[in-house]
Amino acid sequence: MRLSRYFMPILKENPKEAEIVSHRLMLRAGMIRQQSQGIYSWLPLGKRVLDKVNKIIREEQNRAGAIEILMPTLQSAELWQESGRYDDYGKEMLRIKDRQDRPMLYGPTNEEMVTDIFRSYVKSYKDLPLNLYHIQLKFRDEIRPRFGTMRSREFMMKDAYSFDLTMEAAVHSYNKMFAAYLRTFDRLGLRAIPMRADTGPIGGNHSHEFIILAETGESEVFCHKDFVNFDIPGVDTDFDDVRGLQAIFDKWTSLYAATSEMHDEAAFAAVPEGERLSARGIEVGHIFYFGTKYSEPMGAKVQGPDGKEHTVHMGSYGIGPTRLVPAIIEASHDDTGIIWPASVAPFDAVVINMKAGDTACDATCDAIYAALSNAGTDVLLDDTDDRAGTKFATADLIGVPVQVIAGPRSVANGEVELKDRKTGARETMTVEAAINKLVG
Amino acid sequence: MRLSRYFMPILKENPKEAEIVSHRLMLRAGMIRQQSQGIYSWLPLGKRVLDKVNKIIREEQNRAGAIEILMPTLQSAELWQESGRYDDYGKEMLRIKDRQDRPMLYGPTNEEMVTDIFRSYVKSYKDLPLNLYHIQLKFRDEIRPRFGTMRSREFMMKDAYSFDLTMEAAVHSYNKMFAAYLRTFDRLGLRAIPMRADTGPIGGNHSHEFIILAETGESEVFCHKDFVNFDIPGVDTDFDDVRGLQAIFDKWTSLYAATSEMHDEAAFAAVPEGERLSARGIEVGHIFYFGTKYSEPMGAKVQGPDGKEHTVHMGSYGIGPTRLVPAIIEASHDDTGIIWPASVAPFDAVVINMKAGDTACDATCDAIYAALSNAGTDVLLDDTDDRAGTKFATADLIGVPVQVIAGPRSVANGEVELKDRKTGARETMTVEAAINKLVG
Repeated sequence: MRLSRYFMPILKENPKEAEIVSHRLMLRAGMIRQQSQGIYSWLPLGKRVLDKVNKIIREEQNRAGAIEILMPTLQSAELWQESGRYDDYGKEMLRIKDRQDRPMLYGPTNEEMVTDIFRSYVKSYKDLPLNLYHIQLKFRDEIRPRFGTMRSREFMMKDAYSFDLTMEAAVHSYNKMFAAYLRTFDRLGLRAIPMRADTGPIGGNHSHEFIILAETGESEVFCHKDFVNFDIPGVDTDFDDVRGLQAIFDKWTSLYAATSEMHDEAAFAAVPEGERLSARGIEVGHIFYFGTKYSEPMGAKVQGPDGKEHTVHMGSYGIGPTRLVPAIIEASHDDTGIIWPASVAPFDAVVINMKAGDTACDATCDAIYAALSNAGTDVLLDDTDDRAGTKFATADLIGVPVQVIAGPRSVANGEVELKDRKTGARETMTVEAAINKLVG
Repeated sequence: MRLSRYFMPILKENPKEAEIVSHRLMLRAGMIRQQSQGIYSWLPLGKRVLDKVNKIIREEQNRAGAIEILMPTLQSAELWQESGRYDDYGKEMLRIKDRQDRPMLYGPTNEEMVTDIFRSYVKSYKDLPLNLYHIQLKFRDEIRPRFGTMRSREFMMKDAYSFDLTMEAAVHSYNKMFAAYLRTFDRLGLRAIPMRADTGPIGGNHSHEFIILAETGESEVFCHKDFVNFDIPGVDTDFDDVRGLQAIFDKWTSLYAATSEMHDEAAFAAVPEGERLSARGIEVGHIFYFGTKYSEPMGAKVQGPDGKEHTVHMGSYGIGPTRLVPAIIEASHDDTGIIWPASVAPFDAVVINMKAGDTACDATCDAIYAALSNAGTDVLLDDTDDRAGTKFATADLIGVPVQVIAGPRSVANGEVELKDRKTGARETMTVEAAINKLVG
């Protein structure tokens, strides 16, 4: 992408409304724009990151055997009356009347709808286990939305729903998502620690939050510091291996870890003092096993191998992509801007033409841009007529992992400078070497 | 994907509520499910097709220089009061009050919001031309939603919005989208004919609908039959070539073509009788140039090269992916089911194991499945214990382009049968030859 033809509205000033660093940087880098209180547009740079986050989430959901669907945003109130949640869910639920005066709502979550889909089609235990997920907008009318897309009213959620014949099978489904989440967050460049959690309005009796440690986190968390170095399940993880997944779950829940809500001072005190980690955290995922809480009132049953009808056991598994983007920034930035993990960076590299209009600089930059683009690298070419200082500041702000800097002096020698955004390390090399390094 | 682990709820009976063939086939193939009147879930098979349609739309929008963003579904009423459309737009607009009693709405289209984004950031003619698009859900509370996702209330739309300094530049932006649409529909396996259109509630003075010919189309259309063989702009089309794009536009609008709304009997009579085509059509895209209709009341201005402020000229360009899926089916099906164009088929091939549980059949099917999957082919393996006849019927119904049929007799010879879904042609060949043919 040529910056001269792109839409990346950088803000020079720090926006006053931003209370946390990710919100400030997302606004400054032109990633998002608030449209109404707690409702955001994703501008091109933000959309690119969001897409990369979603792609990783999808790959890991699919790997764990979940199947993608797309449920609508608007739901009929009737479904929620069946489960009994229509009255329970307070003012956070956005209630709507359509032109025929039928009560509708903007889905804050989809347990009811997916249970309705399930009961309409699935009649036999032979079709289980089943895990259906979608990545769809949700709306929760929070009284105080804040921190940009970290806590917005309209937000994107990946929500998966598992259906099993028995509790034992449901635990395996839970463990699949547990392992998938560990892999997902790891690929997003995050160290997420699963912590026993309160189940809130989703309900159920077995639940974990995945918390990333970040100085600017919204809540206090307490855990054993060994979690920081635990192994992540590999790409070759066999999701059908019941024992293997249980072992992963057991290992990752073997040490103390709790949010302030669930914190047990006495249990934490039992952790050797040098091993205790008390930090700030951000919730980036939440998984629940809730048995027959929805399947029972909604009549989601299948015929078992015994010929009898069984109410299915369910779980639900949420990740918020529109919250993950700022969470990644909270975990990875410095004074000059964002530092994207390579897996979600909006571009793999930015080529900075220090003197646009100079024939040699233009030719070198165009050649590098073409070579990288042809090799399938996502590359941004800063071909604007801004001052070099402005270009450097922009490149640091938007956090692309590698900067390729081409100025008249280096170009005259057939060279460019490569700067690693994270370490700040700079290296001068020939144009060819730079291309090989970035394409390799 | 192994069918035994997939979720593809085939209906044996023709659903009564379906009035048109695409709606019937989408329900029967388990692609969609109605959740409320005019509101649908996309089940796994449908979601796959929808994704492929969106991918093609995106590629062609990007090729033409449009830049992807993502605006939210809910909008504040204030924006629409600014443009004057809040009161004009009738009951089709879903009006909502949030918990603070602020008037909101579920966006039926995004001219106001994108103009607001534009005016917030863009101040100079140097940043033009600009074309921003998104693929996002819309809601139009139609009094009589019908035909499945062909005319639903919650639907997906790709809507692009162009901004230019002058009318001449805006015409070029219009022509870019005109050519991009021709390419998009062609890649979707459709022959779409641009027809002069009424501008409706979007407004403006220059507009074309893209209509595909289908016997079951909702409206009557009249055109010169030469359109059916016109050349589509190539992959090497230069979207910066003002004259080249104007020539494409001129050619594609040189002959008579009109929907019944805009039909001119006298003009049509002037077309030589043997060249007249009178047929049924389905609208699959709609593009508008509307000048300063929104930029004027909303104050979207830039500084021109003359140092003065100029109100920008705008256009908008819509395609409905959730409508395109049934439109493709209307244009391509037979008595036994859907016939997908390869570009949007949910799977490239289906491997039919005629005798699941038979060691030789299982081994052969698994080998083919593995080879095709590893080569990046989207393949469905029917490994269920259904009868062979049921499997054949399912494969025909879901319309995957190639069927690989493996029965005990052929497998004993090291062979399988390949069936072309469209022509019905069958060919027996070795397993290796089948794999090479499908991977090649």
